[in-house]
Amino acid sequence: MDNRPIGMFDSGVGGMTVFLEVMKKFSNEDIVYLGDTKRFPYGSKSKETIIELSKKAIDFLISKNVKLIIIACGTATSQALEEVRKIYKIPIIGIIEGTIEELKKDTNNKIGVIATTGTIRTKAWENEIHNKIDSSYVISRACPLLAPMAEEGWTDNEVAKYTIKEYMKSFKGNNINKLILGCTHYPLFTNLIKEELGESVEIINTGEKLAKYLEKYLIEKNIKNTISKKGEYKLYLTDTECNFINVARKLINNEALIKKIEKIDI
Amino acid sequence: MDNRPIGMFDSGVGGMTVFLEVMKKFSNEDIVYLGDTKRFPYGSKSKETIIELSKKAIDFLISKNVKLIIIACGTATSQALEEVRKIYKIPIIGIIEGTIEELKKDTNNKIGVIATTGTIRTKAWENEIHNKIDSSYVISRACPLLAPMAEEGWTDNEVAKYTIKEYMKSFKGNNINKLILGCTHYPLFTNLIKEELGESVEIINTGEKLAKYLEKYLIEKNIKNTISKKGEYKLYLTDTECNFINVARKLINNEALIKKIEKIDI
Repeated sequence: MDNRPIGMFDSGVGGMTVFLEVMKKFSNEDIVYLGDTKRFPYGSKSKETIIELSKKAIDFLISKNVKLIIIACGTATSQALEEVRKIYKIPIIGIIEGTIEELKKDTNNKIGVIATTGTIRTKAWENEIHNKIDSSYVISRACPLLAPMAEEGWTDNEVAKYTIKEYMKSFKGNNINKLILGCTHYPLFTNLIKEELGESVEIINTGEKLAKYLEKYLIEKNIKNTISKKGEYKLYLTDTECNFINVARKLINNEALIKKIEKIDI
Repeated sequence: MDNRPIGMFDSGVGGMTVFLEVMKKFSNEDIVYLGDTKRFPYGSKSKETIIELSKKAIDFLISKNVKLIIIACGTATSQALEEVRKIYKIPIIGIIEGTIEELKKDTNNKIGVIATTGTIRTKAWENEIHNKIDSSYVISRACPLLAPMAEEGWTDNEVAKYTIKEYMKSFKGNNINKLILGCTHYPLFTNLIKEELGESVEIINTGEKLAKYLEKYLIEKNIKNTISKKGEYKLYLTDTECNFINVARKLINNEALIKKIEKIDI
């Protein structure tokens, strides 16, 4: 057992979709979240920059005495996870492995992937799918407008609706049965995506898969929190002139559990 | 007189709206254009990064033997112009000064400004307007989705239409008579903006104002091209996996004048 908090970070509100799933599944775990809102978006930055920013975020979370770190960001997972695992001793989990573990259980995978331009370019999802899942059927598409749109809070207006319509054209008629939301901002558009693709396509929320994977992980490593109480949440932002706080409050939906929202300089 | 080319740069296709205005006004000037498409967008990057990227761009253009450099990017103008002018001897012009010179001629300025998040945060436009124009009436709004949308080539679809509708809400009922397009990508949305704001608001294309300003500038400095011939254009991109080339070809509309499109590594 280890009663210290779980740490996680993202470039903005996206990682809060992962936060939500972890919070739902582990109601007694404390969470420290870092939103690097000053540097949003990560999706179009270089690999070197993403590694540097990930190191800053990890150093900060370690200073808050967390027991493990979740990279709650598709871009940072695909571009920096491998590198930072070489540098740090603390366990670090990205958003890809949990999803891959779950997909391995299915035999019929015809997969679509949407993510930021940076993630799509790395082919991180395609490579993992080809290497670890018995499926060579993958179609991917970069959706560079979705994360900035989520940061604006535009997830159910007309702009969002037509943007999803446009992006989903890549998957219509292509007979996929699963769509991986490879950027953690994208679950905020789940309803609109479902409307476009219909019920026959399963929408894969990587945060949900990560939470399942995390359960096994915490047990195996013997680091579950054993105290019976409500988890407490601390949110740190590198810039507060943004929509983050509104989205976070709406998702957590219990003001009493938010012990801190603080602007930090890293 | 100086018959060497004019150099200009931007993070992507935005600067091509400036290119177009300069090309129209000075049909015999050669132009070397650098689109730093690998690092797009500049709009959400830090001041330090913008200065560093601007220096790289300027060094490259100087290596192409240009006679002056136009920063055809609102973000780089607002964040880096002052710094790079301290470093380089070559004349460097941004997109703000030309517009300010033109607006000074009017007595009734009730100004709206739209630009990237980075530019709006610097208050570069507000400060210049307050300092140099007899008007204290300025309303500004960051429009972070417009430049990425232009890079996708989405300038007249339903997404663009509803995005403009949403952003223009900040100006409706606020009695502005001019709207400065403070990012060089934005003239690609001129028709949609006009539809929203109506004929009573003048849309200020900074590239057009810059071209007017440039005429005086070239004459004063005695560096106009005196050869009577069609200008020739060379386009350099740091990444070619993008929509740039299509947009550029459409704007220039004369394949014969494009002498080179080349991917470079800076």
